[in-house]
Amino acid sequence: MQLARVVGTVVATQKSQRLDGLKLLILQPMGLDGKVGSSYVVAADAVGAGPGEVVLYATGSSARQTEATKDRPADAVIMAIVDTVEINDTVLYEKADEA
Amino acid sequence: MQLARVVGTVVATQKSQRLDGLKLLILQPMGLDGKVGSSYVVAADAVGAGPGEVVLYATGSSARQTEATKDRPADAVIMAIVDTVEINDTVLYEKADEA
Amino acid sequence: MQLARVVGTVVATQKSQRLDGLKLLILQPMGLDGKVGSSYVVAADAVGAGPGEVVLYATGSSARQTEATKDRPADAVIMAIVDTVEINDTVLYEKADEA
Amino acid sequence: MQLARVVGTVVATQKSQRLDGLKLLILQPMGLDGKVGSSYVVAADAVGAGPGEVVLYATGSSARQTEATKDRPADAVIMAIVDTVEINDTVLYEKADEA
Amino acid sequence: MQLARVVGTVVATQKSQRLDGLKLLILQPMGLDGKVGSSYVVAADAVGAGPGEVVLYATGSSARQTEATKDRPADAVIMAIVDTVEINDTVLYEKADEA
Repeated sequence: MQLARVVGTVVATQKSQRLDGLKLLILQPMGLDGKVGSSYVVAADAVGAGPGEVVLYATGSSARQTEATKDRPADAVIMAIVDTVEINDTVLYEKADEA
Repeated sequence: MQLARVVGTVVATQKSQRLDGLKLLILQPMGLDGKVGSSYVVAADAVGAGPGEVVLYATGSSARQTEATKDRPADAVIMAIVDTVEINDTVLYEKADEA
Repeated sequence: MQLARVVGTVVATQKSQRLDGLKLLILQPMGLDGKVGSSYVVAADAVGAGPGEVVLYATGSSARQTEATKDRPADAVIMAIVDTVEINDTVLYEKADEA
Repeated sequence: MQLARVVGTVVATQKSQRLDGLKLLILQPMGLDGKVGSSYVVAADAVGAGPGEVVLYATGSSARQTEATKDRPADAVIMAIVDTVEINDTVLYEKADEA
Repeated sequence: MQLARVVGTVVATQKSQRLDGLKLLILQPMGLDGKVGSSYVVAADAVGAGPGEVVLYATGSSARQTEATKDRPADAVIMAIVDTVEINDTVLYEKADEA
């Protein structure tokens, strides 16, 4: 899994029926310096994440192991909204600080 | 999943029977600046995508989770034609603008 | 999937029984400029591909979705010999031209 | 699989039910020079690993093949705490030396 | 699949029960120039490979398709010891030459 920040959305009406009802968010993977680069992933949202939030996402077949994504053609899923990230006993990110 | 633009086609007559009837398109992954680089992916088309369109594609076993690709030796599938991409409340891409 | 050119073979007698009878070919992935780089993949052959031919290959669990590779420890399979590759209405590769 | 050092933790309360009870650790992959770079992976812990320890982790669907991660949306798992790493008959890492 | 040379071993006593009895070897992927770089993979051994040997390994779910690795949390497996590698009708590697 990787940490990422939610930065955008994708809307598509012409799609596989298997995608119906899935919210698709654009994530930018976050480094251990707390910054995002230029790469991104489009992920299905299984937890009601919102713009700007730091989330955890999984890829591959593991992305289909939530209620929201079972049997869906989705290869990435947001399955947690992150509260705290700690590296070597130092807090890298705290959701409460951003509110 | 990644965003990509449809740029070409692959035709093959000598192939695994499991590929019969699948349309194979060449995609170039699109960055968050709206541009494509030099990399590409050949993906099975599950939604009737056409040349120049911006699409969403999935890879790995998730690529087999559409009616068109079930049990097929395809590791990438186009499963949505994109209408709108929004990054930080700015529209990066709008299908209507290209028509 | 990716396009690639068949450049070599791997022979192994001491191997998992699950590999028995599989032909293993060395492929070099082909860019959209029609050239190959220095990277390679060893793939199981499901279509009788020969040296120099341009083929399509799939990786991951999708590589096990052919008759030849079902339940085999193979993570890449050649499942088509390419006739034509077209990019933006220009022919990048035509098998007939090479014969 | 890759070798990695445990460097941190991720805490999340708002998450897929399928993640309940899983401990999520931040790993930095270790090179054959014994050093870690700047990349990282968030992995589920199946063996009770602690901060600073050198571990072995697996990714993809294989990450769901432990009691702790079965049917979970986790694409990386720590499934061993490493005692010894030997390269060309030289000991690269010995857990006992660090204690 | 990729070609690689066996360069080391990993020993771990505190591990998932699902790893019991598996031999874990360190491999360095080999380029088509016959050389290894600095990257590595830890793979389960399904064929009795030894130090210095050139082997073929598979990754992902395909790594679980041998008797030795079925249902194991292993994402890489050595499933063949290589006898000969030929590139464009030139022998790149011959096991007999190394003996």
